[in-house]
This record gives sequence, structure tokens and C-alpha cells, in this order.
Amino acid sequence: MTDVVVACGQVQPILGDLAANREITTAAILDAAASGARVIVLPELASSGYAFEDGDEARAAAEPANGPTVTLWQRHAADLDVVIVGGFCEQDVNGTIKNSAALVDPSGLRAIYRKAHLWDAERLIFEPGRLPPPVVDTVVGRLSVMICYDLEFPEWVRLPALAGTQLLCAPVNWPKYPRPEGERPGEVTRVQADAAVNRMFIAACDRVGSERGIDWVGGSTIVDADGWPLAGAKASTEPTVFTASCRLTDANDKGVGGLSNIHADRRPDLYGGALEVALVRPASTNVG
Amino acid sequence: MTDVVVACGQVQPILGDLAANREITTAAILDAAASGARVIVLPELASSGYAFEDGDEARAAAEPANGPTVTLWQRHAADLDVVIVGGFCEQDVNGTIKNSAALVDPSGLRAIYRKAHLWDAERLIFEPGRLPPPVVDTVVGRLSVMICYDLEFPEWVRLPALAGTQLLCAPVNWPKYPRPEGERPGEVTRVQADAAVNRMFIAACDRVGSERGIDWVGGSTIVDADGWPLAGAKASTEPTVFTASCRLTDANDKGVGGLSNIHADRRPDLYGGALEVALVRPASTNVG
Repeated sequence: MTDVVVACGQVQPILGDLAANREITTAAILDAAASGARVIVLPELASSGYAFEDGDEARAAAEPANGPTVTLWQRHAADLDVVIVGGFCEQDVNGTIKNSAALVDPSGLRAIYRKAHLWDAERLIFEPGRLPPPVVDTVVGRLSVMICYDLEFPEWVRLPALAGTQLLCAPVNWPKYPRPEGERPGEVTRVQADAAVNRMFIAACDRVGSERGIDWVGGSTIVDADGWPLAGAKASTEPTVFTASCRLTDANDKGVGGLSNIHADRRPDLYGGALEVALVRPASTNVG
Repeated sequence: MTDVVVACGQVQPILGDLAANREITTAAILDAAASGARVIVLPELASSGYAFEDGDEARAAAEPANGPTVTLWQRHAADLDVVIVGGFCEQDVNGTIKNSAALVDPSGLRAIYRKAHLWDAERLIFEPGRLPPPVVDTVVGRLSVMICYDLEFPEWVRLPALAGTQLLCAPVNWPKYPRPEGERPGEVTRVQADAAVNRMFIAACDRVGSERGIDWVGGSTIVDADGWPLAGAKASTEPTVFTASCRLTDANDKGVGGLSNIHADRRPDLYGGALEVALVRPASTNVG
């Protein structure tokens, strides 16, 4: 039961400059590995930048899963003996463009995940994913992958959690919105809740910088199985690489106090179809 | 589109002393109404206290839904023109003991909810509820009710949210656990997330005090439809009544930025059964 060092490489990609972004992500990967990281998470669309004007611009920045960026990450994973999870703009074998993430380890490409919940205008550019987050057994533990807005749908987070994921790796690009003075970014709060109600570690890697009027939170966060932040969890405007030591086996125990077990205590028999009951029950007869 | 003043009456019930608890809750209700509250939330098991040693002790402190406590709250609701949601130890018509909450308004008893997710040793004492949270149209807006540990199950929170609830009223008794320096109670964080991923206000009313070695957080919280705390949201050892002004119609708009809509963007077709796909997909073939 040894701790696993997990890193976020909160970089600033350059829109449309794939070669530069390979250098930028390489630098973050090397930095993280030098700090002892065994798992390195990079932002959403780290290969390409985010703010495409249209599908043509995205297509010009897209690569297949065996393209230069993911191939490079695979080589780094093998050279450094690490797991890397990073977002990239994918053109799949059918020619469609997807907001994807690759999980690579020393043995090669282990999984591609395509974002299922597309944020804002992404739906005008990308085809949404149709498969649940992959659950991948690696040498450091059982990992899963989802992307940014996916984290806002607790049903989606449940799927890899119920499949025994110990660490959910989430490339994100969290757009910056105003928030009340003294408040942590709301996305971080939701990550904390996603982790705590599943007793699962989560590493969400955000980006910094600005593209075409969009700023990002720079709120990369690593939380433990109780949902407490181990690193990050605050807004930043600076590229940074940070790590946290994670006892991933903590995620195997779903006990949350006394007889309570956050997964076993679910009542899935009541979750489907119950809505209709609630709607049709007249106020005057819902007692007894 | 007027704001609705919502109150939490964070009291300290006395274990097994039903008459004293009626006085304690009455004082909180009068205090809240004097502050302009139109909705007043009281803690879980406010009628009875919490730490029963066994079912017999709970039975001795139980009342039917038309018993003295709920009848008194109904009278207060009518006299003060308010909605009251409070937890009570219920003996139902079949004689079983339940951890319940009543929603009363000036017209009388509108709904009884029985806690579906029983915490720790509660399962040795209470029969769990089998019906989803009631959704009740009141003069101030559409309200729903759930109790404490229920809030840790996002699937459960979804049901009243999808049914158009504007304000979820949650009697709670949050047991106190250690937390990292400077961190808000984790239960508050989960309430923030529950609210934000549904764009629904939540008022969670906790208790204070100590019973048989159990302390409570005293973390009563009122959050807005973005999940930002409007009042409370910190640990306290003192009984208190506080209010927040809530523009409940904000909950009617599920937009969260640009084309994004936190309810319409759900993909329920992917949420059921997807787990199996994730589990059986071998690592080497989940690409393409």
C-alpha cells in the first residue's frame, strides 16, 4: 500500500499550434516526472487549444489517436515509466471530430475517451461520445477518464466509480466566471462532491491563458477519496505543474462512518421512474 | 418575481423530551417569522432528538403525522402564513417507526417524506422510506423535501430537481468529523454541488449540541441556484435562526452558459447499463 504521486500539468496551449503544444506538454510531463509523478494529467484539448471558430478550424487542428501528439505521449510514458492522460482534438477513423482524451502507459495506448457532455458551442464542432468512461487497470491502480463538463453530471461520474475506479483523471478547460469573494471556484466544489460521494480520488487538470475572449480558471485540483483538496483547488493565471501523494487504496473502502457505505447504501431500485410518482401524487393525498 | 425569505432554525433538541422540543421549535419558528421568513426549515428529528439507543426508545418518542408536534407546526403555519418543513420521529398507521419530515403550510399538512437513505445505526431503528421526495406547489414556490444522508446521493436529488423543484428543504443532523484546517464542512460542499448541478436552491437545516457522544456540525446552509452560500455554510456550536432572501424563479432557468443547459444536456440514454460496457471492454481494444 504505497502512495502514488499524481501530477497536474496546468499548461497554456497555443491555439492551432500543434507542434508548440507538443513541446509545451512535453515540458510539463518531464517536470512532473522529475517530481516523482507516476500519473500525469494534462488539460482538455492540450494538443490544439480550445476556442475554434468553426468545424473547419477544429479539423485543421485534429489528429488521429495514432497521430503525432498521442504517439509522443506514449513515448514519454514508456521512457519515464508513467501514465499520461491528456486531451486532444481527434479526427477518428470516420473523419469526425471529437473532443477526446488519451490514456497512455508504458505499454502503449490504453484507452481513448470521447467527451459525452459537450459544453456550449462545442456541440457545433464536435461529435459527442457515446461510450462510458473507460476503466483501465494500470500498474499504479485502476484509473478512469472523463472531460470537463462531464464532471457536472453525477450519473456519469457514478459509472466508473461503481466499476472500482480509484483515480478519475479529468482533463478540463474551466471557463472563468465571476464568483463571490472568498469562494473557491465552483467547479472545484463539484469535483470535491464527485469524489466524496464515491470515495474516489479525482485529478482535474485545467489550463490557463486566454483565447478569443475566453479566460480559464486555472483551477487544477487533486482531491482525495473524502473530497478534500490535496493540491491546487484555487484559481491561478500561471502555468504550473504540481503533485500530490495519493494513497489510492483508500478508494477501495466505501465506508463513510459506522454502518454507512456510500455505494452499498444506494437505492437504485428507487432512482428510475420514481419521478412520475412524485409528479402525479396530489398534495392532499401524499400522507399515510 | 419577488424574493422569498427562507429561514433555518438551527435548534438544539432535547433527546426524548417532546414537549420541550415543541417549545424549542416554536421559538425558532416565531423568531424566523419575525425576520420575515416565508419558508422555515427545522432539523431532522427536531421533535425527538437523535441518538436513540434502540427501537423501543425511538418508539417512545414517536408520533403519528397527526400527532401533537406536526399539528402544532400546522397551527403555526396557519397563524404566521408560512411554510414549515421539520423532521420528526414518526410512528405510521402500521406502527412502524420512520425518520420523517413534514411539510405544512397555511392550508394544513401538505406532505410527509420518509428518509430513504438511512445513516449508520438508523437502519437498526427506522424503516426506510420507499417513495421519492414529494414535490409540493406552495404559495411561495415549488418545494421538495429530503433528509440528511439522502443529499449524498445525487440520483435522489435529481428526482425533485427534474420535477421542477425551486427550493429543496432538507432537515439534517450532520455528525461532526475532523476536517482539514480552513475547510468548510464537507456536507456543505455537497449541498453546493447538489444545487449547482440542478440550478435549484437548497436550505439544509442542521442542529447543534451533543447526545451520547455524538456532536453535530451546526452547519445549516442556504445556497442559491448556482450553489453559492447565501447564509450559514460554516460550523457552529450555537443554536441560531438565520434567513436568506431567495429569488426562487432563478431555478426555472437551467442555463449555465451559452448553449449549455444543466438538465437538457443530460444523456440519460447513456446512464443505465453503461457500467457493464466499461467493465468488459478490454484495455487493448477500447480505441477506435
